[in-house]
Amino acid sequence: MIEALQTALGPRCSTARAVREQHGRDESPFDVPPPEAVVYCESTEEVSQVVALAAQRGVPVIPFGAGSSLEGHLLAVQGGVSIDLSRMNRVLRIDAQDQTVTVQAGVTRMQLNRELKDTGLFFPIDPGADATLGGMAATRASGTNAVRYGTMRENVLGLTVVTADGSVIKTGTRARKSSAGYDLTRLFVGSEGTLGVMCEITLKLYPVPESITAAVCSFPSVDAAVQTTIQVIQLGVPIARVELLDVNSVRAVNAHDKLGLKESPMLLMEFHGSPASTTEQAQTVQEIAHDFGGQAFEWASTPEERTRLWTARHHAYFAALQTKPGCRSVTTDTCVPISRLAECINETVAEADASGLPYFIVGHVGDGNFHVGYLIDPGQPQERETAERLNAQLVARALRLEGTCTGEHGIGLHKQGFLLDEAGEGALSLMRSIKRALDPHNVMNPGKIFQL
Amino acid sequence: MIEALQTALGPRCSTARAVREQHGRDESPFDVPPPEAVVYCESTEEVSQVVALAAQRGVPVIPFGAGSSLEGHLLAVQGGVSIDLSRMNRVLRIDAQDQTVTVQAGVTRMQLNRELKDTGLFFPIDPGADATLGGMAATRASGTNAVRYGTMRENVLGLTVVTADGSVIKTGTRARKSSAGYDLTRLFVGSEGTLGVMCEITLKLYPVPESITAAVCSFPSVDAAVQTTIQVIQLGVPIARVELLDVNSVRAVNAHDKLGLKESPMLLMEFHGSPASTTEQAQTVQEIAHDFGGQAFEWASTPEERTRLWTARHHAYFAALQTKPGCRSVTTDTCVPISRLAECINETVAEADASGLPYFIVGHVGDGNFHVGYLIDPGQPQERETAERLNAQLVARALRLEGTCTGEHGIGLHKQGFLLDEAGEGALSLMRSIKRALDPHNVMNPGKIFQL
Repeated sequence: MIEALQTALGPRCSTARAVREQHGRDESPFDVPPPEAVVYCESTEEVSQVVALAAQRGVPVIPFGAGSSLEGHLLAVQGGVSIDLSRMNRVLRIDAQDQTVTVQAGVTRMQLNRELKDTGLFFPIDPGADATLGGMAATRASGTNAVRYGTMRENVLGLTVVTADGSVIKTGTRARKSSAGYDLTRLFVGSEGTLGVMCEITLKLYPVPESITAAVCSFPSVDAAVQTTIQVIQLGVPIARVELLDVNSVRAVNAHDKLGLKESPMLLMEFHGSPASTTEQAQTVQEIAHDFGGQAFEWASTPEERTRLWTARHHAYFAALQTKPGCRSVTTDTCVPISRLAECINETVAEADASGLPYFIVGHVGDGNFHVGYLIDPGQPQERETAERLNAQLVARALRLEGTCTGEHGIGLHKQGFLLDEAGEGALSLMRSIKRALDPHNVMNPGKIFQL
Repeated sequence: MIEALQTALGPRCSTARAVREQHGRDESPFDVPPPEAVVYCESTEEVSQVVALAAQRGVPVIPFGAGSSLEGHLLAVQGGVSIDLSRMNRVLRIDAQDQTVTVQAGVTRMQLNRELKDTGLFFPIDPGADATLGGMAATRASGTNAVRYGTMRENVLGLTVVTADGSVIKTGTRARKSSAGYDLTRLFVGSEGTLGVMCEITLKLYPVPESITAAVCSFPSVDAAVQTTIQVIQLGVPIARVELLDVNSVRAVNAHDKLGLKESPMLLMEFHGSPASTTEQAQTVQEIAHDFGGQAFEWASTPEERTRLWTARHHAYFAALQTKPGCRSVTTDTCVPISRLAECINETVAEADASGLPYFIVGHVGDGNFHVGYLIDPGQPQERETAERLNAQLVARALRLEGTCTGEHGIGLHKQGFLLDEAGEGALSLMRSIKRALDPHNVMNPGKIFQL
């Protein structure tokens, strides 16, 4: 296989230890031997060629974007070849009048928004890391804007995919809606590389709002911040972002980004619309926050201030890691119906406090989604055990509250047991049937989402 | 099989000719022999029982809701049993705080909104007919509100499905987002009964807007109305409804609903939001319409007037049928990117005018979706041929303009060739693989979407 790849791609097929190790690790706390080779593809045709070679030989292939997965998606658990798509980083076409864009899978979200700068349009989905759009589609990612703009599920219009035998297919069109047959687009979105390699992605874009205002509000407790959020959502305020940071997260970003935020639980919010509409929204939210003891409703009115705050929010994960040198994070990702969010978070906070492990909480609370990051010393197996026990307890709670074990990070290696608990054996068996039908030799990122 | 069904369901299994004929016909222009039996199921368990019996014997089953399909979805092209779900018509739970509802598949969209009346919430998706939510999910339906609220694709959170062997599975949870494995929910939405029978559906709801205003505006030409729409969408006005009626549709609804609308191309619009926001939106739209020669921007400010207008819009299809006694309609359903809409409609109008067939156009133009209904005499095969030729020309045009052959009606029997043109052999072959994997004996509504 490696010879065939080297013949096809020359020096763009590497077996160097450092390259393999870089592609055999993500932000998950797993240690797995690296892939046997890494190929840097520069076109859909090259991906097709690599997959065809792999299919003939039954060699696993693992699509690789930015390496920012939190759940072990990129790890070569059954060996094989990592297909690095980071050189497929061209924005292929911007159709500003239709508010769509087609990109290669290796374009990152920040690169895309830089390239959209002069169009008056933007792409809202923003996981913490500067992930690639291929990776984001593969894990059905979301981020801080999902409460208003949806997730990758709602924002991918179409795909060019290399399927398990190396064929190239297109799914979807540039039309905003369609009922033309099975929804292959949404089948690939969230499939974590197990059904094919997404090479090109057509996305919805949105007009940069005429008015954007951001605000920070401190609360006496996490519960007060969450109760405020619940009321905002239930009232139907079209808030664009509403993010919770617990006191540990605020401390971490203060230290990391040299901010002077008040060290108490906080909501970080943003309002999009016409000037009249954003004023109206903010006023409604301010009144609700006041009822729950919210203090210091502060405005970030200049774009610079806003960028500074949101950059800090996006750094929260890395900022928190730095509070415990050498640590890794076991990161939870439950999402529950909004009416159950307070119950879910409050019980979780009590458990986390009692555990003695350092932790932080950030949450896309408008969606009912929040993350607890338990900071563990990888040299202390017992810390990981404690963190995993807390994660399992949180997932059980979320499922009891009719939520999901993962709002946006995916299943990967980490949550396969949780997926069974959530979906049940019947639905999981359907997923396996689809996998077997579309990837009969089990070469597409095998061992992820479920075991066959 | 019939004996087994009669043992299981008693008189709720019927082989009476009238009953079978009623279930062997929809709004499509096809004539096919009726199913061999009709069963009226009253629970998911009964559906499971019927499907298990059918699976053992290789007998086709066809889920039946309101019978309002336009594409032959309900026709028993391979014989078998029609599963009538109309008695599964209970709203099972309304979770007002989470803005979700769970219904049995036989609940109709109008029934649902009646039952939601006191909650301050509504369900926006409204195909012309009073379809069942099961049927709407099966065809990935949309309607007049999709430009703002999305389609069934965006609004189904989870499903209870009887799969091809009679098993009952659940997909999704009540959480607003999830990345837990393959998106089975969206695989079933739009699968036209070919993968399983949807029995329960959990849907998103929306707060009834504080302010709703509707307006009617007449234009000198279809093109002027479409150009206005394109600008409204491109400016990002969050308009809730923007519907085109050509002069033939206006005449038909005037006659059918005793309205006095000016007999020229028309946009029928609705604005949702706070009072300030709807005023702002309407003002923007009025200015744009004025630039394109829009006249008589008239307000429907009372709920009664609004209801009267939208009811007329929903009657357009039946009103048009009545303009040519005994006719049937060959109804097109293309959807294109908004920047291509004017080109698509203008060429289509020229062709329709030249054909000599009576026709009408209604369009969810904010989505780039419009319907031409060609009114044909079923006794004149040549009229159907002409209509089908025009439909094929329109689909070819829509595909060239990067659109889809069907925005919301589905493929059924009618558009299988168009689906191949649109998706390509590779994607279609993937759909067939999924069908074979999930329904190995081909009992679930066989012969629809594609031939195996």
